[in-house]
Amino acid sequence: MDNRKRIIVDMDGVLADIYSQYIKLEFNETGKKIALEDTWGKSEVEAFPNSRKHLRTKGFFKNAPVISGAVETLQKLNERFELFIVSSATQFPNSLEEKYYWLEEHFPFITWQQLVLCGSKKVIKGDIMIDDHFKNLDSFEGRTILFTQPHNFGENENLHERVSGWEEIINILL
Amino acid sequence: MDNRKRIIVDMDGVLADIYSQYIKLEFNETGKKIALEDTWGKSEVEAFPNSRKHLRTKGFFKNAPVISGAVETLQKLNERFELFIVSSATQFPNSLEEKYYWLEEHFPFITWQQLVLCGSKKVIKGDIMIDDHFKNLDSFEGRTILFTQPHNFGENENLHERVSGWEEIINILL
Repeated sequence: MDNRKRIIVDMDGVLADIYSQYIKLEFNETGKKIALEDTWGKSEVEAFPNSRKHLRTKGFFKNAPVISGAVETLQKLNERFELFIVSSATQFPNSLEEKYYWLEEHFPFITWQQLVLCGSKKVIKGDIMIDDHFKNLDSFEGRTILFTQPHNFGENENLHERVSGWEEIINILL
Repeated sequence: MDNRKRIIVDMDGVLADIYSQYIKLEFNETGKKIALEDTWGKSEVEAFPNSRKHLRTKGFFKNAPVISGAVETLQKLNERFELFIVSSATQFPNSLEEKYYWLEEHFPFITWQQLVLCGSKKVIKGDIMIDDHFKNLDSFEGRTILFTQPHNFGENENLHERVSGWEEIINILL
């Protein structure tokens, strides 16, 4: 029996820097370098016209860089909390194995028991959820922490606690 | 907002007939045909000495037959309940895509939003769970239905409702 609080951590946009991947693949495809500052307040599809295609491209998830501070902080959270990584993945079946191996490569202290790959997060129960999508946080019954990403910028500020990066998570949870 | 009760259905040993796969691969490997009746009351590893290896074999999940009655009954459950398929899969990363495509092939009415591939099911919340493993049912907060498989035969009969097949599920849930 694990009496620690259970924390649910998202992958894309929280651990994995998929905006870098969008920018890189958009540039490879069109020769146009989209500046990150021009994506604030826009949905991913608005900001990156080819993003739906790129999400299905082999290597998109496997080669994503890690978001700054994620490894060190997750290691600490993993000691303090019962931690699960829950990632939306079944929409893109090519992402399933890529996400598994990405996590194994960058977060070797996370075990296969701690990984959940799903379509909808409304079946997930826990005490704290860190995610960059309102749709995931809105149906969660515990404490909800919105991880700032360009696509959620400017959205309703009163529904969830907002953090701008992993350093802030240290401050509020550790 | 979906006001239907949420039902969580397991894949291996409930939808997918993995005992047929164990028997087939064991025979291919050793030339010995293990009779299903000799596996009752034994764990999968006790019954099939090479099962851990076969679970990692390409095609093991993709080629599993469907358990009798599963398609028709699941189709009815899918209308009456908010249904999720939740399968332990992250222990065997080769199984992730195979399970996705197996489900798509045999249960095309189940969407990607309804599939969860995980390591541990204790993060899953719902009203009813159908599973063949005690470890999954034991941590579930709702009604628990144990689907009889040789490995769970003879185990504690008082913890969960036991059904011997999909016909019985029609009787108790529909």
